[in-house]
Amino acid sequence: MTATAAPEHLDRTVDDVARRAQEAFDGLSRTAPGVRAAALRDAAATLADHADELVAIAQDETGLSEARLRGELKRTQVQLRLFAHVVADGTYLDVRLDEADPDFVLGPRPDLRRTLWPVGPVLNFAASNFPFAFSVAGGDTAAALTAGCPVIVKAHPGHPRLSERVAQLVAAALQAAGLPEFTLQLVTSQDEGVALVEHPAVRAAAFTGSQRVGQLLAARAAARPDPIPFFGELGSVNPVLVTEQALQERAGDLLAAYVASVSGSAGQLCTKPGFLLVPEGTEYDDAVVAAAAQVPEHRLLNPSIADGYARRVAEALAVDGVRVVHPGSSRHDDSGAGPGQTWVTPTFVAVPLDLLRRAGDALLDEVFGPFSVVVEYPEGADLAAVVAELFPGNLTLTLHLGEHEAAEAQAALLTHLARHAGRILLGGWPTGVAVTPAMQHGGPWPATTTDGTSVGTAAIGRFLRGVTFQDAPQELLPPPLRDDNPWGVPRTVAARGDSLGW
Amino acid sequence: MTATAAPEHLDRTVDDVARRAQEAFDGLSRTAPGVRAAALRDAAATLADHADELVAIAQDETGLSEARLRGELKRTQVQLRLFAHVVADGTYLDVRLDEADPDFVLGPRPDLRRTLWPVGPVLNFAASNFPFAFSVAGGDTAAALTAGCPVIVKAHPGHPRLSERVAQLVAAALQAAGLPEFTLQLVTSQDEGVALVEHPAVRAAAFTGSQRVGQLLAARAAARPDPIPFFGELGSVNPVLVTEQALQERAGDLLAAYVASVSGSAGQLCTKPGFLLVPEGTEYDDAVVAAAAQVPEHRLLNPSIADGYARRVAEALAVDGVRVVHPGSSRHDDSGAGPGQTWVTPTFVAVPLDLLRRAGDALLDEVFGPFSVVVEYPEGADLAAVVAELFPGNLTLTLHLGEHEAAEAQAALLTHLARHAGRILLGGWPTGVAVTPAMQHGGPWPATTTDGTSVGTAAIGRFLRGVTFQDAPQELLPPPLRDDNPWGVPRTVAARGDSLGW
Repeated sequence: MTATAAPEHLDRTVDDVARRAQEAFDGLSRTAPGVRAAALRDAAATLADHADELVAIAQDETGLSEARLRGELKRTQVQLRLFAHVVADGTYLDVRLDEADPDFVLGPRPDLRRTLWPVGPVLNFAASNFPFAFSVAGGDTAAALTAGCPVIVKAHPGHPRLSERVAQLVAAALQAAGLPEFTLQLVTSQDEGVALVEHPAVRAAAFTGSQRVGQLLAARAAARPDPIPFFGELGSVNPVLVTEQALQERAGDLLAAYVASVSGSAGQLCTKPGFLLVPEGTEYDDAVVAAAAQVPEHRLLNPSIADGYARRVAEALAVDGVRVVHPGSSRHDDSGAGPGQTWVTPTFVAVPLDLLRRAGDALLDEVFGPFSVVVEYPEGADLAAVVAELFPGNLTLTLHLGEHEAAEAQAALLTHLARHAGRILLGGWPTGVAVTPAMQHGGPWPATTTDGTSVGTAAIGRFLRGVTFQDAPQELLPPPLRDDNPWGVPRTVAARGDSLGW
Repeated sequence: MTATAAPEHLDRTVDDVARRAQEAFDGLSRTAPGVRAAALRDAAATLADHADELVAIAQDETGLSEARLRGELKRTQVQLRLFAHVVADGTYLDVRLDEADPDFVLGPRPDLRRTLWPVGPVLNFAASNFPFAFSVAGGDTAAALTAGCPVIVKAHPGHPRLSERVAQLVAAALQAAGLPEFTLQLVTSQDEGVALVEHPAVRAAAFTGSQRVGQLLAARAAARPDPIPFFGELGSVNPVLVTEQALQERAGDLLAAYVASVSGSAGQLCTKPGFLLVPEGTEYDDAVVAAAAQVPEHRLLNPSIADGYARRVAEALAVDGVRVVHPGSSRHDDSGAGPGQTWVTPTFVAVPLDLLRRAGDALLDEVFGPFSVVVEYPEGADLAAVVAELFPGNLTLTLHLGEHEAAEAQAALLTHLARHAGRILLGGWPTGVAVTPAMQHGGPWPATTTDGTSVGTAAIGRFLRGVTFQDAPQELLPPPLRDDNPWGVPRTVAARGDSLGW
């Protein structure tokens, strides 16, 4: 149980937490968009006001660099403000009004008014690798609050003090801005998280983490007497496909950028390129080694991630025929208090396509950390088929073409790639996810368990459901459905007499 | 295996069916909206052209009345034409364009273009009770085709000849209109249906039927190596809540309409009101008996449904304290060929609220057929709490108020009711679902397994997923994302320099 300064948190049970979220839902679902938007902006402002303190805690707990953490904290503020924009705009409600029509083609039509509406309390399992942007006040929380759902965050054990402090600051800011008490709550133990997935008051869960834990929690959500949606982001290897021509034009830049994308934040990113597919005969060793040798040691986030990384790298290296291009270093520092820290540099290996196919999960499963595989494909290989067979579900797929190579054949290839990832990049690198309306961060399993995006404004859709009111008097309708439209939301009207295509 | 006239169907395997759907997907996802819209209208036209033949087969196979079946066939045509309108309009794609922005607040932003895109082949389990509107060319099929997904229909065994004939006619119409061969396919055996839920090429499933079968299939979909969404509509009891004042004003009309809503199509509708909640002391016996006595015998759809109905009614009547208001009749006619037909009139029973609570599933579970329970609630009962406890997940909830009773208290009640159903009616009866943009036919479990609606234009959302293209050259983008917008779809643009609330 978390120990905050607030006395009401000290002896609460999981049931108390869920009940309080349920009570907060009553008020939160009725707050005007202006109030909710202002509260989100206030939450962003309080993070900005405490940036120095928060970044210092985060550095200590995660080993991520100050520059990275300041950037991530800014991103977290941008997310909150972007959602303030979304809630004030109201398009996300997808309001549809069908006017009553006594002459409708199928017989008299009643007055029907449909809006998307918050699902209820949302449970959000925070991630290890983004202590701000995918944690207590991160994207999932911002999306759920915007939708009108109270949020219970299960803190990640990798950054407990930061989680506690952010929860205090943001919960206070939301309440001061007029949102109900307990709109945002924090729990810290695994047992609490599991119990809450099964609690009747919790209506949806979001999760960013490992495939193993995600599948266990998803199974619990599905086995409830009343199953709830479980939006899990479970893993992605983000293959980058490079053509012969692209390499001829810019091999040097491309390989240096590859190493940088694998190494940033010690490869502890869900969009790290785990595979680079190049034509057989490509010379890449020197460029990869030269770039990798320049990468300084980086601390891994926590002992659990360090253990997992060591295990997966060992598994991959044990596959017969894997060739090491650049061996990374690993150094354990137990000079401080606690379990010590692991510092690493990136490891690159290479295999022919056939070997990758034979090796199976030992190479194909995600390695969370600065490790990547160069795959040499034979001339004429059908890259669409390779992706369908070996990389069926990803957050991203990237294709590097030569300057004048974009043509009909690639258009067909893109159509196929789009079946296996949520974001298709033409050039560039998948790390560095823009937080914008058009972002898609989610893809076929195991990238995500259920369709949806956890980055960008479309993320709100996961926490809404359709509700239609039939023949309701004005005074009983939710505000976005009233004739006078007090929230000023955009609405689509099917007018009396409109044939709708009939 | 289905035996159609087309020779290529004769010796196909489940894998052939899935593979053909996958191949059709290539072409179908690229068809221009105008082509898809025309094909949907042609499908509607061919149903109209063959109305006499189709209605005659349906009458024979289901026992539903000619008037009901002609109405349902017209509804099915309207659904197809309504979706032709949707695909031509293009709003459903939710296209979002973020212009590249070197000065974006979080650092240079790439060019991002997001559209919703068809998930791939969809498996649609047809329903017993709507041989047209929730079957081969019904709402789920229309929504999936509109999205650009090939459809494999698992025919319901209750109307095999009708399913076969509709599939022939509609598949031919779609192909003649320029859609790929095998855009619509039919399978008929249960084994094929189960095998297809687990086939890698199938990317989503829709189901309308019993809770038991739906849960089995949902578990299969979830247990795949790559779980797929399963949109099941599993059951609903559609409580109708009546206030003292409503009864004082119009008890006669209200009770007669209740009996009519329970009895129409022999109660074999997913929106049949299974419970009528009235204040203790209400006199309703005479009105219910008078109306019920006028209801003619109606054939139940098939022997399996007749068996289930008899079993559930017996279970309900066996509950100690249940009072029979109007005993229905049941007559088995085995004069014809085959297993015979069961003809019934409606049964109404009554219980005090406390007894309903104690009886549990024996009374609370859906009874599929013309059976309904009048529940007497004590003065001052908290109806929101009653719904939350006893009726947590429904397609519809209906509230009958007195003329001047709409007020603040009821607004709060409605907010609570909206958590437990997809459609909230103020007056009127839940049977008779309008097919329009603002309809919601889906609700909390077990009404539906996964949020979504299976009636109305929003139904298309179940068969789409978000895909974002980053920095793609014009010639490689899907048409709705190109600068020249060849499909003319509405798009939301985040312009360079737009702060998005920052």
